[in-house]
Amino acid sequence: MKQITSVAEMQAEARQLLKRDVTIGLVPTMGALHEGHLSLIRKAAEENDEVVVSIFVNPIQFNDSKDLDNYPRTLEEDLALAEDAGATIVFTPEAEHMYHSDNETMVQVTRLTNHLCGIARGSGHFIGVCTVVAKLFNIVHPDVAYFGQKDAQQALVIQRMVRDLNFPLKVEICPIIREKDGLAMSSRNKRLTDEQREEALALFGALELGKELIESGEKNSLTVINQMCEHILAHGDIEIDYMNIVSTETLDDVETIDEMVLLAGAVFVGDVRLIDNMLVDPAC
Amino acid sequence: MKQITSVAEMQAEARQLLKRDVTIGLVPTMGALHEGHLSLIRKAAEENDEVVVSIFVNPIQFNDSKDLDNYPRTLEEDLALAEDAGATIVFTPEAEHMYHSDNETMVQVTRLTNHLCGIARGSGHFIGVCTVVAKLFNIVHPDVAYFGQKDAQQALVIQRMVRDLNFPLKVEICPIIREKDGLAMSSRNKRLTDEQREEALALFGALELGKELIESGEKNSLTVINQMCEHILAHGDIEIDYMNIVSTETLDDVETIDEMVLLAGAVFVGDVRLIDNMLVDPAC
Repeated sequence: MKQITSVAEMQAEARQLLKRDVTIGLVPTMGALHEGHLSLIRKAAEENDEVVVSIFVNPIQFNDSKDLDNYPRTLEEDLALAEDAGATIVFTPEAEHMYHSDNETMVQVTRLTNHLCGIARGSGHFIGVCTVVAKLFNIVHPDVAYFGQKDAQQALVIQRMVRDLNFPLKVEICPIIREKDGLAMSSRNKRLTDEQREEALALFGALELGKELIESGEKNSLTVINQMCEHILAHGDIEIDYMNIVSTETLDDVETIDEMVLLAGAVFVGDVRLIDNMLVDPAC
Repeated sequence: MKQITSVAEMQAEARQLLKRDVTIGLVPTMGALHEGHLSLIRKAAEENDEVVVSIFVNPIQFNDSKDLDNYPRTLEEDLALAEDAGATIVFTPEAEHMYHSDNETMVQVTRLTNHLCGIARGSGHFIGVCTVVAKLFNIVHPDVAYFGQKDAQQALVIQRMVRDLNFPLKVEICPIIREKDGLAMSSRNKRLTDEQREEALALFGALELGKELIESGEKNSLTVINQMCEHILAHGDIEIDYMNIVSTETLDDVETIDEMVLLAGAVFVGDVRLIDNMLVDPAC
């Protein structure tokens, strides 16, 4: 596995690979790799000749500078894990090489971001995500880019950006990977104390409860949301950031559940923000 | 010369060319080709194996729907001119293939657009320009993209976008091509009556006057701008949209002229909006 830190070198390497008609899979990450990331890297390795894993904690997508400072950084471990999972190139640029001091270009997806984390974290979050991903696409030139369903809104937003700006690549969205007890894998889980780790499970529990209610015939979103929120508040000292039932295509709130919906929640356990979601089909 | 109308076909063609290690020059146009465009195409033909000329009247960059409706469309002539100048591919997509009805992604350069045409035409204009050019870059995959100095602000904005989003290409800015009497070539010139054609020359005359004043030692921008505006108003029934002396790098207004500046003006001759500009170095 090769480690590349220079943007120009990565771009030149991608150009060489393109000429050789080699297919490139890209797994964009912010590091602190866990089984969720590794599942994306393994998928990319199955489907492509070369697998580029980018590790870059993107400053412009953080609305909260404490969250940025506290974001776990475990590069040595990440390199070993990425290689083991099938990465052939790890791209680890420095922030000062990714952004000029007078950087002034941004990519914005307007409607899909006006929901869920786009509201909770402010409009700058997804502008930051889209801008860095557009940059990574132009630097790495992947045939396929892999994103996790854990960040369901992010995956949809990137798919829309790729379609609207004609990026010549396919976005693949891969399933959420969970701990044995159901907690969605997240780099931020490392920051939880043992007690918080127990409490955090309430988010998954709430989604499971919502799924049960809908599959047993409950069609009223508000009823389901109320019960999910109650479940969370009864199971720990957790602050609910949002808990919504939305359309899987537009992310608009759904009032009456007649078809597949996305249950999406965000909570603060202490100062650690966690998100999770579940696709639920009332016909099941 | 090949004509391609499908986005997917153009993208596949570009991919094939990349694999063959062929260099691609792109000249993005809105058609109604004149000597200005042809000079870009010839330059591109000198410097690249393949020259793609895109012809697309981009609806989202027009702030004025009458201007969009009246924009000259001369496709048959354009095809002959482009081929003659050295184009190997003409890309002529339909608007409904370039934009999905639920298109919602935009690319914005924030500071450089907050001047000149970015104010006069509203912020949507350059969002429209950047978005369509980003799309064209992703579809055509040029090594070099050619823009005219006539649209000085546009050229700077695109250069900034390319740098900030790491598009793997070079932007070349080519000199303004003028009629014998000095009028800057523009597709919109076709819409001028004979009388308006005479009046339109006042814009070039004003820039020449400004250049003379600065080269003879005038350092006060306001003095120069006032004389340029007086020149225009004395030479015809013209409405001045803006007339500014700005930094060549930031486009900020310059008060005291100590180094190279850009004189930039926009006028309405009847309902036809014309722009022109001149780089002036006080040291000359």
